Amino acid sequence: MHFADALPLQSGKVIRDYNLAFETYGTLNADRSNAVLVCHALNASHHVAGEYEGQPKSEGWWDNMIGPGKPVDTNTFFVIGVNNLGSCFGSTGPMHLNPDTGEVYGADFPVVTVEDWVTAQARLLERLGIATLAAVLGGSLGGMQALSWTLQYPDRVRHAVVVASAPNLNAENIAFNEVARRAIVTDPDFHGGHFYRHGVVPKRGLRIARMIGHITYLSDDVMNAKFGRQLREGLALKYSTQDVEFQIESYLRYQGDKFSDYFDANTYLLITRALDYFDPARAHAGDLSQALAKARANFLLVSFSTDWRFSPRRSREIVKALLDNRRDVSYAEIDAPHGHDAFLLDDARYMNLIRSYFESKVARFG
Amino acid sequence: MHFADALPLQSGKVIRDYNLAFETYGTLNADRSNAVLVCHALNASHHVAGEYEGQPKSEGWWDNMIGPGKPVDTNTFFVIGVNNLGSCFGSTGPMHLNPDTGEVYGADFPVVTVEDWVTAQARLLERLGIATLAAVLGGSLGGMQALSWTLQYPDRVRHAVVVASAPNLNAENIAFNEVARRAIVTDPDFHGGHFYRHGVVPKRGLRIARMIGHITYLSDDVMNAKFGRQLREGLALKYSTQDVEFQIESYLRYQGDKFSDYFDANTYLLITRALDYFDPARAHAGDLSQALAKARANFLLVSFSTDWRFSPRRSREIVKALLDNRRDVSYAEIDAPHGHDAFLLDDARYMNLIRSYFESKVARFG
Repeated sequence: MHFADALPLQSGKVIRDYNLAFETYGTLNADRSNAVLVCHALNASHHVAGEYEGQPKSEGWWDNMIGPGKPVDTNTFFVIGVNNLGSCFGSTGPMHLNPDTGEVYGADFPVVTVEDWVTAQARLLERLGIATLAAVLGGSLGGMQALSWTLQYPDRVRHAVVVASAPNLNAENIAFNEVARRAIVTDPDFHGGHFYRHGVVPKRGLRIARMIGHITYLSDDVMNAKFGRQLREGLALKYSTQDVEFQIESYLRYQGDKFSDYFDANTYLLITRALDYFDPARAHAGDLSQALAKARANFLLVSFSTDWRFSPRRSREIVKALLDNRRDVSYAEIDAPHGHDAFLLDDARYMNLIRSYFESKVARFG
Repeated sequence: MHFADALPLQSGKVIRDYNLAFETYGTLNADRSNAVLVCHALNASHHVAGEYEGQPKSEGWWDNMIGPGKPVDTNTFFVIGVNNLGSCFGSTGPMHLNPDTGEVYGADFPVVTVEDWVTAQARLLERLGIATLAAVLGGSLGGMQALSWTLQYPDRVRHAVVVASAPNLNAENIAFNEVARRAIVTDPDFHGGHFYRHGVVPKRGLRIARMIGHITYLSDDVMNAKFGRQLREGLALKYSTQDVEFQIESYLRYQGDKFSDYFDANTYLLITRALDYFDPARAHAGDLSQALAKARANFLLVSFSTDWRFSPRRSREIVKALLDNRRDVSYAEIDAPHGHDAFLLDDARYMNLIRSYFESKVARFG
């Protein structure tokens, strides 16, 4: 969908003449009360569920969660997935033309925040004629957007489902983001963010960024179970510093290569920065309870025991701040071995929890 | 000290005509029974204690631990620090001439292992006329060397003090090493490890490697306490993806820059690979108790509660395997907030523990 009007951003800049890519699943009911917005995290998109016709293996990134008969049941709900501004899967981003200059944005694409994405999503919903969301749902950075919805548009969200998220990033998380960004920015093929003009891609940096991401989204336990100290080839050591010796090295290199083939480097910078900046308590001198006083929605928070980037402790901070404000909050801490990635995976307890929340609470329309 | 004779390495290669840089502190006693060898970790050297005359701020890396009247008291002990082969602080390494070719080694420097370092250290001690060590002491990778001493030369070590170490690296640790190595190897200035010939240094890669190291050597708690989400400049956000916004970013960039000015890229590869390869249980189908059956020394093991790269769990594996062999083992798990770095820091309980072990156990000579 095209938006001609300027969208004012938190940075003070504006963006105009932009597109938002989105998909919908299910049917909007007569009183338009069954809409569920799904917000995506770092490298996902508006393609939340289902397969594209004739394209096997094109399942949406949350296809286990969303669809007919699934925990978020599209026989009941009208689900909307939106690709965020600045991303690289269809919505306007750094690889598109800046209408003010006629040149590709590149590094000049404005910095976008979680709040900006939510504002853009709200405009899209207005166009779709949806005044109120039955629920907004997201994991990780998507969870931050869900939380922000309840603060920016408190009267337009009935339920917020915030999975594996945090009220802000701690220093260690910012640090990992910063290393990834430095790897990209210092890649000679980055050209200050204007690599498109040079017909190159800063793949070295993207690979390193993705490898760091992969390590930190997994738990120590799952890495040991999956790879341990297993060698890639047979039993004999090669004694090499540059060749692959252990399976884990091979896996990481493969993931890095794959990512560098499709992900935009400027998008990576923008999205990690949005993560860094999100901090609703900042305007309240760090008092999260005060920051969340505006929220009117009912909440479900979910965290995973081995998630060390968005640990249960961080979800509990949100829960406490909501309880301080006497909000209706359900909270589940799921004992799963998969680290941060758990929010994308099939775990029967997790799936049943989301299903029962949507069936018993969100589906009470009107 | 120069060694003309070829040293056979685990890889099957040999290294000859090499130098080992070392320092000693205190006085070797008449029956040569008070020698303590200190093994270093990733970016340290033979300069363990004391200051160089006329060079302020040149304290050794373990100066809080070793010296006259200190926990390892050089009024009692004769302490030896050795720079490992392949390092970049005086011993023969990748930046030196390969006697076989007359060219700088670069990437052709042979892969060296913990076991190779121990063999080289043992040769040095023979030259110094020291048949038996009162103790071998090391933290992290240095602790691996201390442990390996008790297996390679069981009758030549009376005590082994193994601090913040592990019986091998787990998958996550190998993964972090691999990302750091890829950052170096894919830096266009690396030139396959022969950057010396090109008059350049792969500083981009070294910076990234060091930033990753710094994050993982600290604990989440200490990073939050030290930096949190503090902005570098005032209170206003800059909304930039490339400028420094948070203090933690500034700190990491500074540490990366500093490191890239003095550390050798090939050494980084070699030393992280030595970490990856160390695994005494490997030849025993993973049975650490069987692997440690050879050890005859008495042991002190120390770990730190917030060290997530060399966690207490890993030290306890060593303790258990030693107890299975009915070795004399003392073990302390110190509740310190500083993560892996704690082994280098002043903590009264830690310092007193090492002091009392050396006073009451190691100092019983003869």
